[in-house]
Amino acid sequence: MEKSITAHIITIGDEILIGQVLNTNAAYIGSQLSKINIEVKNASIVGDIEEEIIAEFKNVWDKNDIIFVTGGLGPTHDDVTRKCVVKFFNTELEESKEVLANITELYKKRGREITKTAKGQALVPKNARIINNQKGTAPGFWIEKGNKLFIVMPGVPFEMTAMMEETIIPELVGKYKSLDYVIKMTTLLTTGIPESHLSDRLGDINELLSGSKLAFLPSQYGVRLRITVKETSEEEAKNKLSEIEQKIRAKAGRYIYGKDDDTLEEIIGKLLKDRGLKIAVAESCTGGNLANRITNVSGSSEYFERGVVSYSNAAKVEILKVNEDTILEHGAVSLQVARQMAEGIKSTSGTDIGISLTGIMGPTGASIDKPIGLVYIGLCDDKVCTAKKFLFGDDRILNKQRASQTALDMLRKYLLGISLDD
Amino acid sequence: MEKSITAHIITIGDEILIGQVLNTNAAYIGSQLSKINIEVKNASIVGDIEEEIIAEFKNVWDKNDIIFVTGGLGPTHDDVTRKCVVKFFNTELEESKEVLANITELYKKRGREITKTAKGQALVPKNARIINNQKGTAPGFWIEKGNKLFIVMPGVPFEMTAMMEETIIPELVGKYKSLDYVIKMTTLLTTGIPESHLSDRLGDINELLSGSKLAFLPSQYGVRLRITVKETSEEEAKNKLSEIEQKIRAKAGRYIYGKDDDTLEEIIGKLLKDRGLKIAVAESCTGGNLANRITNVSGSSEYFERGVVSYSNAAKVEILKVNEDTILEHGAVSLQVARQMAEGIKSTSGTDIGISLTGIMGPTGASIDKPIGLVYIGLCDDKVCTAKKFLFGDDRILNKQRASQTALDMLRKYLLGISLDD
Repeated sequence: MEKSITAHIITIGDEILIGQVLNTNAAYIGSQLSKINIEVKNASIVGDIEEEIIAEFKNVWDKNDIIFVTGGLGPTHDDVTRKCVVKFFNTELEESKEVLANITELYKKRGREITKTAKGQALVPKNARIINNQKGTAPGFWIEKGNKLFIVMPGVPFEMTAMMEETIIPELVGKYKSLDYVIKMTTLLTTGIPESHLSDRLGDINELLSGSKLAFLPSQYGVRLRITVKETSEEEAKNKLSEIEQKIRAKAGRYIYGKDDDTLEEIIGKLLKDRGLKIAVAESCTGGNLANRITNVSGSSEYFERGVVSYSNAAKVEILKVNEDTILEHGAVSLQVARQMAEGIKSTSGTDIGISLTGIMGPTGASIDKPIGLVYIGLCDDKVCTAKKFLFGDDRILNKQRASQTALDMLRKYLLGISLDD
Repeated sequence: MEKSITAHIITIGDEILIGQVLNTNAAYIGSQLSKINIEVKNASIVGDIEEEIIAEFKNVWDKNDIIFVTGGLGPTHDDVTRKCVVKFFNTELEESKEVLANITELYKKRGREITKTAKGQALVPKNARIINNQKGTAPGFWIEKGNKLFIVMPGVPFEMTAMMEETIIPELVGKYKSLDYVIKMTTLLTTGIPESHLSDRLGDINELLSGSKLAFLPSQYGVRLRITVKETSEEEAKNKLSEIEQKIRAKAGRYIYGKDDDTLEEIIGKLLKDRGLKIAVAESCTGGNLANRITNVSGSSEYFERGVVSYSNAAKVEILKVNEDTILEHGAVSLQVARQMAEGIKSTSGTDIGISLTGIMGPTGASIDKPIGLVYIGLCDDKVCTAKKFLFGDDRILNKQRASQTALDMLRKYLLGISLDD
């Protein structure tokens, strides 16, 4: 196979460096390039300082086939990118009639008169190919030199993405269509198993992958497994991906709830709809986090009947019909109360399934018997009523997220007939 | 004034390069450093490839006072950062008893047995100072060489931020306390007013700032106003900041709910506690989003009694005692139902205040009279029962967030005696 076509992405702007604005542009460009077999080797962020920008151009030029630059193309004093490009390529600026017409048109459309500052944006590096900006005034441009590409776009996300979609991606696909390799990725989403256990379960990674790549991406919601293959044809890449996916599923299938952009709440939504089942939830410790996630899915009113955030014991007794004596005897955070909450929300709402959570999220509220992170999750249908104990960490918000993720995963396993025991 | 202390941030991970994960770590580190007078000159992202990582270490080492590295410290085969650090500093790995004890403890807490893979994380570069990981297993470390600092942290955001807050920031503040300039920032948090209206209200920005900087940062929660001053002493910086803050408050005070890291749910929590008042909430369209936010605040059980997510009409009638005829006549999304939901949750829970939301979040469920984004918010106490109509946008998740933010802001204004009319 040929060597990969490689790219470097430079984002220009102080606001990115000081974390005022997230670097969504580099993420977008990276995701688009990885879909068309171009490998993003590195990316960098540089402030609005001429010397720094030119130094970075020099630094990355030799090492890559394509350089992407976004930001610093606007009309104000702190937009220095064009100046830097001109110096780097040892050329000069000239007015583009095409761009000037575009800017004039845009101002007319918005009922404004064109200013001198705005006109200045029609100045582009000599011999650069212009990339039309359909959403704003600053044009992008594309410089080709010795088999290398240098592509410059504005930093405003919707202007940049429009240029990528309409011009740059189609051009690159055409330019590199004779590549003799195809890169493909898929991500398997797991939950309920720590990274190191999952790794142990998969066994010999090299044997599993036979030349492809696997990345472990952990978060409070679980570990994502990203598989990347590089093959000589679309079909071979697809086959290789599916072969590795099947091997992983054979070893850790019960922990995998979805793929790529799936969310667990969407997955359980589909399962509930397919089976024509309705649920209701009773939350104490998660305080509405679970209901909020379930209702993030459009169409959830088809299967989600109601939720109760029974923060007080009174709410547990009055709405969920939890036995007051059980609370007195075992405490509100107990297996017994979790079970009664799930049973209570199911019977009072008339749904097929009731789910409940009660626990201690921290930082306060712990006792010797009941540490921070202790959560009981209950699940009842017409026949069975079960509750399980979990121990999460010591961060309140993460504990809420972990607990609701675990409750959704319990529901998934229940709906698929997978044992709830780990 | 002295030359600034400069830093470079390296984020390691293919998932960042291909845009699968946003680079929130670099943004967070950048924002923290800019608060303590350290200038982030550049940042870069490198994939999980040894040679590339080491090349980047070499590339940035000479140019900066501090190098931050995050990512690639986990227990699996694709985590290569430690290996690269060891090669770059020409040292070796050794097992840290302290770290091993921490990992063992963490596994014990979660009721799991420690695996060989997990144990491997106790290997750290010789002579490196360990930064304890209170939230996970992979330790961070800190290498000092010839007046330069090399700081390595895991890529899991909550592990990294805990290390920054608890160890790194305090250490850096101590180390660089003798600088002869002070950069200070503060951010005022507004909601309920669009960016352009806010800007018009503030009038002549240059006159307002007299040399300092102001940034407008809009999001679905409102517009943040960040003020940055650079002065020669702590006191001058503080005075300048407070002077500008007061000018802004004089012009837009009623829209400002807090400062810096405040959240609106914390602010209303304090107000409720101070006044000894209790609330309960009834949510339809927000599906638990409001209750979830209120209960994100530690100690919220003191003032939050219960929440009901009355997604079905049955739940509205049964739990909240909404009149069935009112639903038939005006529809579930109406001023009348919002008022009855707020009244119902207040009276059935016995709290001082009841809040309700009913609306159409999209993408489906709209009619000619009732478009996507229409939300009614009700607020009742023992004397008054009011409801207001709002029209948000067409994105389901953003609408839920905007609606709960607006409900919290209505409560804030009510508690402070500010008119609910805009």
